[in-house]
Amino acid sequence: MSEEELKSRILELEEEVKRLRSNNVTPAREKIAQMSGEVVDSNPYSRLMALKRMGIVEDYEKIRTHTVAVVGVGGVGSVTAEMLTRCGIGKLILFDYDKVELANMNRLFFQPHQAGLSKVEAAAHTLQFINPDVTFETHNYNITTVDNFDHFMERIRCGSLTSGPVDIVLSCVDNYEARMAVNRACNELDQTWFESGVSENAVSGHIQYLIPGETACFDCAPPLVVASQIDERTLKREGVCAASLPTTMGIVAGMLVQNVLKYLLKFGQVSYYLGYNALVDFFPTMMMRPNPHCDDTWCRKRQAEYAERKASQPVEKKEEKEEEVVHEDNDWGISLVDETSGEEPSTGATAQVAGLAEGITLAYERPVPANDDSADTVQVDDTSLDDLMAQMKSI
Amino acid sequence: MSEEELKSRILELEEEVKRLRSNNVTPAREKIAQMSGEVVDSNPYSRLMALKRMGIVEDYEKIRTHTVAVVGVGGVGSVTAEMLTRCGIGKLILFDYDKVELANMNRLFFQPHQAGLSKVEAAAHTLQFINPDVTFETHNYNITTVDNFDHFMERIRCGSLTSGPVDIVLSCVDNYEARMAVNRACNELDQTWFESGVSENAVSGHIQYLIPGETACFDCAPPLVVASQIDERTLKREGVCAASLPTTMGIVAGMLVQNVLKYLLKFGQVSYYLGYNALVDFFPTMMMRPNPHCDDTWCRKRQAEYAERKASQPVEKKEEKEEEVVHEDNDWGISLVDETSGEEPSTGATAQVAGLAEGITLAYERPVPANDDSADTVQVDDTSLDDLMAQMKSI
Repeated sequence: MSEEELKSRILELEEEVKRLRSNNVTPAREKIAQMSGEVVDSNPYSRLMALKRMGIVEDYEKIRTHTVAVVGVGGVGSVTAEMLTRCGIGKLILFDYDKVELANMNRLFFQPHQAGLSKVEAAAHTLQFINPDVTFETHNYNITTVDNFDHFMERIRCGSLTSGPVDIVLSCVDNYEARMAVNRACNELDQTWFESGVSENAVSGHIQYLIPGETACFDCAPPLVVASQIDERTLKREGVCAASLPTTMGIVAGMLVQNVLKYLLKFGQVSYYLGYNALVDFFPTMMMRPNPHCDDTWCRKRQAEYAERKASQPVEKKEEKEEEVVHEDNDWGISLVDETSGEEPSTGATAQVAGLAEGITLAYERPVPANDDSADTVQVDDTSLDDLMAQMKSI
Repeated sequence: MSEEELKSRILELEEEVKRLRSNNVTPAREKIAQMSGEVVDSNPYSRLMALKRMGIVEDYEKIRTHTVAVVGVGGVGSVTAEMLTRCGIGKLILFDYDKVELANMNRLFFQPHQAGLSKVEAAAHTLQFINPDVTFETHNYNITTVDNFDHFMERIRCGSLTSGPVDIVLSCVDNYEARMAVNRACNELDQTWFESGVSENAVSGHIQYLIPGETACFDCAPPLVVASQIDERTLKREGVCAASLPTTMGIVAGMLVQNVLKYLLKFGQVSYYLGYNALVDFFPTMMMRPNPHCDDTWCRKRQAEYAERKASQPVEKKEEKEEEVVHEDNDWGISLVDETSGEEPSTGATAQVAGLAEGITLAYERPVPANDDSADTVQVDDTSLDDLMAQMKSI
């Protein structure tokens, strides 16, 4: 071939590479400036806007103004992000430092060709393709290191579409340290958030709604889990990985996003705690008040602020009901509230609380108090999760 | 550039073109001959095989011998198929006659570039790519027409990996006619199946486990739904489409596949009926005995066979408990069973049955009996769903 021909071949190939690459990049549809309820096959929002006509949601379009931070883009977090994307959320901020592996293919969302890619980048790429109307921001780092934690705090405080605080933080992580980091950030920032978790034997999970000062934080009490009736001592042997199922993770992600939608779009009743036991299809609910002696100073500050707000409100009927809080004699100094005596009486399957609701147990025994010199760093304890999980009780 | 460099650049680009092209077509991993529990990042089954080590499932590999028929590959059926694929099911048979539309993008699974493709073909393509170990069979037709119904029956009877009956049929359809067709086929074939459904206002759903002769069929009683506390009369106006949410559909698919896994792999307790009310996170369970006067002759035949099997079994303690069935005075001639008095007492949130369990209501009023000359055709009534749905009660 002449030099001319070689160069022409290169141009041709470069074009083809560009075309093939763009196939994977350009969205399959144009952006949509305004959500419409028009009932046509080409409208990706018709079945969502129908929620207005059905009297479920008053102002569905408002979802476009909301920003959600998803911490952990694994089995629960990735499906959570996909559900919010398909619902047309305004902005998603994704945090994770892991890579996609073939070993993740037993859960929904990631596909085998993404093995080796960063989870946040692979997720944002797929999600942008599914819904080009959503804004994505990704952070490929571990939030528990000191520098990253500061940046994480900053993004929660200023990451929304209007550079204000995000509307809600969703913890979809799989370890104790990351949960405590989210807890600490949200207490300090007075940021409402949701926790989620799936047991290591894959057959139970839960979500929890945390409002600083109003509900127990993760320093007030360890996370509650649904008892799995399985001896947890079998879990922690050498070379053993946690089990997981796409079903349990899909259900937990669904429960999480459903409650986020109820919170953001103001319909139905947000559950403070919703558990899931897959073996017997049991879904306990409950609510837990904060510990007045919580180790987290920001939590105690938020509790004082909440008490002040309550005191300045005119006394209503619901204030009287507040007295019905069950003060349990326990090591945690926390009080449990039967949701049926709460401000919004549940008409559902809310468990009667006597101590903990039936089938709910504490995930960890009370950890050894952290040294106070750690006040400016995230409290990390490499061994605590293992130690504490080992003590998880079955009912 | 020298000729050498130009040629090297061409080779490089050709490699890239090959790589990009292969990304979209060939599976991202080789088939795996035998499931292994080895804990390495490259093993897509490690987290599933861990269910054995955790004492949840005795023989996880057995999943590869099972065949599941999924009827309807929409919001629930597509996620159901993906979950089973990721769990490593042996074979999936998919039935649907619909095309993917952008209006489906508010649920999980399908992506915008698939708009216009047949749902079964688009689904099988994606699923084969996710897990090349699964065998797929697709049927792009409406099962309720006479010819297709015969073929559908034949595939249920002979579609398994060993050309025998499938292990379970999952109804994930969105209309009354298709549900009745699945019911009729399963009664005649003595085929155990699951029904699933999501309400038109998107905030409730259910699954139901049907064993011909042992539990009520769809001709014994109309499908049970979870009361949504929404006036259903708003739903059926002109130009109005049903609302749907990826959350509700993901949760219903998760509840369905979780119970299928419990059924196939023999762990936990399969729920006869599990409902979901998203507004208050309420999940009722119950069980319903068949109607001795059921219009479906095959149902009555299966009831007689079941009674005979029971009678020939040695009398055990559980036989006595059978007497505790609550015989309700109702138009349906059906009896409701409190699951806590059933053979496997539930330790969970099973509702106390008094009539129907709290929050559960019948989806339809009793339809007008069909003409008997329809014995060899599927009973289709175009107007019945609308008429009957309009009468759905709120609690």
